[in-house]
Amino acid sequence: MSGRKRVVVIEGEDAAPEAMRPTVALVDRLGLPIDWVRPAEGIDLVIVRENLEDLYVGVEGDLSALRPLALSSPMARRPVADLGPGRFALKVITEEGSARVVRFAFELARRRRAAGRPGKLTCATKHNMLPATDGLFREVATRLAASYPDVRFETFIVDDFARRLVAEPQALDVVVLPNLYGDILSDAAAGVIGGLGLAPSGCYGDGYAYFEPAHGSAPDIAGKGIINPTATILSAAMMLDHLGFAPAARRLEAAVERVYADGRPLTPDQGGTATTLEFAAAVEGYLR
Amino acid sequence: MSGRKRVVVIEGEDAAPEAMRPTVALVDRLGLPIDWVRPAEGIDLVIVRENLEDLYVGVEGDLSALRPLALSSPMARRPVADLGPGRFALKVITEEGSARVVRFAFELARRRRAAGRPGKLTCATKHNMLPATDGLFREVATRLAASYPDVRFETFIVDDFARRLVAEPQALDVVVLPNLYGDILSDAAAGVIGGLGLAPSGCYGDGYAYFEPAHGSAPDIAGKGIINPTATILSAAMMLDHLGFAPAARRLEAAVERVYADGRPLTPDQGGTATTLEFAAAVEGYLR
Repeated sequence: MSGRKRVVVIEGEDAAPEAMRPTVALVDRLGLPIDWVRPAEGIDLVIVRENLEDLYVGVEGDLSALRPLALSSPMARRPVADLGPGRFALKVITEEGSARVVRFAFELARRRRAAGRPGKLTCATKHNMLPATDGLFREVATRLAASYPDVRFETFIVDDFARRLVAEPQALDVVVLPNLYGDILSDAAAGVIGGLGLAPSGCYGDGYAYFEPAHGSAPDIAGKGIINPTATILSAAMMLDHLGFAPAARRLEAAVERVYADGRPLTPDQGGTATTLEFAAAVEGYLR
Repeated sequence: MSGRKRVVVIEGEDAAPEAMRPTVALVDRLGLPIDWVRPAEGIDLVIVRENLEDLYVGVEGDLSALRPLALSSPMARRPVADLGPGRFALKVITEEGSARVVRFAFELARRRRAAGRPGKLTCATKHNMLPATDGLFREVATRLAASYPDVRFETFIVDDFARRLVAEPQALDVVVLPNLYGDILSDAAAGVIGGLGLAPSGCYGDGYAYFEPAHGSAPDIAGKGIINPTATILSAAMMLDHLGFAPAARRLEAAVERVYADGRPLTPDQGGTATTLEFAAAVEGYLR
């Protein structure tokens, strides 16, 4: 991470199921539908991820349970219930959920444009294979684009987008994705810029928001005092922003960036030998 | 691409829906369930992708159509049919489809081990959020691992895997993925190693197989005579392998690698000025 290299990623879903459930439950209880990710060398992109729908509605079952619907697969030319023994899961995309996250992303792109960034929104879906569900998400985004003529809007098929994210991340600004693609590709974005230890995240709802590092509980280094606190500190900066303390957020981010520019007090994941507290003390030093 | 850098990716699903359907139909008609991808600098990995199931069964509809099933979302604590206005798509994972692709991947890992490669199989799923469907895929893979004690087997949550694929691709050998993850992450892998123009693919069924470059129809450069034929030529090498002409396959691959080592007759996507035919002539020259 340098002054031109920043990352933000999603909640700790790499952790074990038990460790993750509370986060999902919290997202649900507070009605927080929107999650985002901001990776970065000359890279400064934000991934806005819908966070309540898609395959995360938690509806699965045996294929035989679908028999009453007489659904048929046009690809397999057989009733779905006869494809098994096997299981199904439901992917759900709603107009309201799609509009909410896309509007959030357009507003963010507009604010970033005002702050001198490109002000572009990229939407990626698998609308060619999933015209009803992903097609709806893309259709809602395309419709809303008309209300944001100042924001450049583009769409890609999600597999093509995955290649672009890895090969040309500098070309991206704000990205909006359905839940599952956002989950997978925000981690890929973290890989592009140097790891989850650098990636803060925010989860935004209508009445609430919460902020946390994107990484999980990292049991392999628990108790060693060497975890990289960058993601946690940058999550705090995102919270300050949300609460209306933008100057304080910028100061905190600048202090973190100066630690990386210094290059000495880095934790082991960044090739240094500093402890978590030594890193934090260095940030504090640059805050004074 | 160097002598130590090779890629193989999937069929042309980046193309428009109309352009893509014939491929899907062909996969279906021939009963070819398995697709693979092999990217590559010190990277030499193969992605084996299930190719008939998952969200590609083509079953979508309005959420209201699900009302007879009285399915409820534990996350939303509401009947699924009430989540809309919106749409659903079905993700399908079967025991048979999973076992077929996993067995193919284990056999490949075993053959690669015999050829001096690590002989490791990595399976990635979202089993924490999708215990019934992705959990089944992972369970089948874990069960089959017992029959391949010579192949090291590991599993990851797919978002964590996405980060690893980007950050540490050298640590991977053979990867097996459900259809959708394979679709997205094979393109990400192509991004890691330099583009779809380098990525051949094979699609294997019980009685048939076919081989093609992973890229789509590339309408932006149609008729210019500058497309990189590497993926097509390496697909031919995969076909030779499949037909039992391994020495010929190795010769063809070696000729392509020598063109890259030479570095002059490269097409524009690789920073060169050669035409497609000039590149092909250079390969032919090294075959003599």
